[in-house]
Amino acid sequence: MDTEGHPSTREFSVRRVDQASATMVSDLVAVEEPLERRLMYWFKDAPAVQSLGLTMRTPGHDRELMIGSLLAEGILRDRSDLIEVRHLGAPPSNEILAELAKHVDAEGWRLARASYVNSSCGVCGKRSLDSIVRPSNQASQPGVTVDSRVLSTLPGDLVRFQSAFSKTGGLHAAALASTSGDILQVFEDVGRHNALDKLLGWCVLNDRVPLDRNIVFLSSRSSFELVQKVLVAGGNMIATVGAPSSLAIETARAYGITLVGFVRGDRFNIYSGEWRIH
Amino acid sequence: MDTEGHPSTREFSVRRVDQASATMVSDLVAVEEPLERRLMYWFKDAPAVQSLGLTMRTPGHDRELMIGSLLAEGILRDRSDLIEVRHLGAPPSNEILAELAKHVDAEGWRLARASYVNSSCGVCGKRSLDSIVRPSNQASQPGVTVDSRVLSTLPGDLVRFQSAFSKTGGLHAAALASTSGDILQVFEDVGRHNALDKLLGWCVLNDRVPLDRNIVFLSSRSSFELVQKVLVAGGNMIATVGAPSSLAIETARAYGITLVGFVRGDRFNIYSGEWRIH
Repeated sequence: MDTEGHPSTREFSVRRVDQASATMVSDLVAVEEPLERRLMYWFKDAPAVQSLGLTMRTPGHDRELMIGSLLAEGILRDRSDLIEVRHLGAPPSNEILAELAKHVDAEGWRLARASYVNSSCGVCGKRSLDSIVRPSNQASQPGVTVDSRVLSTLPGDLVRFQSAFSKTGGLHAAALASTSGDILQVFEDVGRHNALDKLLGWCVLNDRVPLDRNIVFLSSRSSFELVQKVLVAGGNMIATVGAPSSLAIETARAYGITLVGFVRGDRFNIYSGEWRIH
Repeated sequence: MDTEGHPSTREFSVRRVDQASATMVSDLVAVEEPLERRLMYWFKDAPAVQSLGLTMRTPGHDRELMIGSLLAEGILRDRSDLIEVRHLGAPPSNEILAELAKHVDAEGWRLARASYVNSSCGVCGKRSLDSIVRPSNQASQPGVTVDSRVLSTLPGDLVRFQSAFSKTGGLHAAALASTSGDILQVFEDVGRHNALDKLLGWCVLNDRVPLDRNIVFLSSRSSFELVQKVLVAGGNMIATVGAPSSLAIETARAYGITLVGFVRGDRFNIYSGEWRIH
């Protein structure tokens, strides 16, 4: 994989203790480094640059990470909203700049971002649900269906793509799969949100948004934020190896998308949208 | 445990598929809900209130979560910096307010917070390391030591405290242990950062900061941010069930604290500060 000059794993000399005997061994560890995300946009006919803050991530596919995070935050909708994304400074760089097209409503997303962080969400999370930017209501359509046997094949197939996880035990994976069970793309990261952002960014770059004909398969648990990201990308089917949270289920049910958890061998639980699985 | 009117688990009716046969079952799920954190502080002799944004968390021990996050963010140092922490509105409430004492330097922490998020961190994470608020340099002292057999007992003992995890598979735990292996306190949350924040908040409330005579034991992997939180609380020993990230190791080594990973049965790896384990 292209890691833009940054390896995604690093060797450390560590002391391994096993039943009170200790040896020095070389251990392969998932790399975590900060990425500063900067955005260039147009406001009142003048270009402006703003930092979106630091993200701790595994280097590699920073462009996809940047684009996916901008999609998930409602800042861009597709590739036409983007002029370019490039690292700043010499490689390996931990600073990235995305330049938005002039037609993007910068004031709009600045307000949306501020209100998401500061909204007086109050009692039940409803305001958080309301803040989801939904490009269409396709997820409430039946859309594609999937054979339950296809879901059972995903964990085994994913492991074959997870080169770094198998060496480090420290990375999450996000995969795009077809409804016939083919894994189309996989990204890994120390953060499960980053792994999904990288996948969504790749989808934007390859004109695959909305994701209404695919399965998003995650090695992690599912949370509100992960379901929200898939929703924003127009997806309607999420399967995970781990457990869902209550708000992940409630969000999936409210927006009519299929949420499957604990996909292990021939077993899984369907938490929402069971009509898409036959 | 006191969950302030909010249960930490919730039942959902789900379809369980097992080798192509499907049944409706009741599944217990970890609750995830947004908490809005608000801070009341004094600035130029006038009280002011500011939102610190939304945190997705498992309800219960919100006060500890709030106080621990304020400690980790460098906003307060100990219980004397705090007047009170209370929910806003009728229970179960998803909004909490912490009131700082008048002597707390509000301008200072506002600048520090802004510079952490916006710092041009650049190439290597050094600026992130520099932004760590360290109350003392005790971690570079040898401090306490621990018998390797004590570490091996922690996972089994933790599981007995993890009531909600065992039912849902969806919660992380953060525990405070003595160097003789007694688990003194455990908190659970859908987020590993929240679980640790709850533990640190409890430590502040019980005058246990700095944590230089204890082990912080986490059911999760370790990341830069988790190591940073323990550092700010004056801890010098972290053990985790999962893998560390590269920056977790580098931070632990730079600040002389002990970092242990993959604690499973009689086996574990010592990534930093091995002189504290005999």
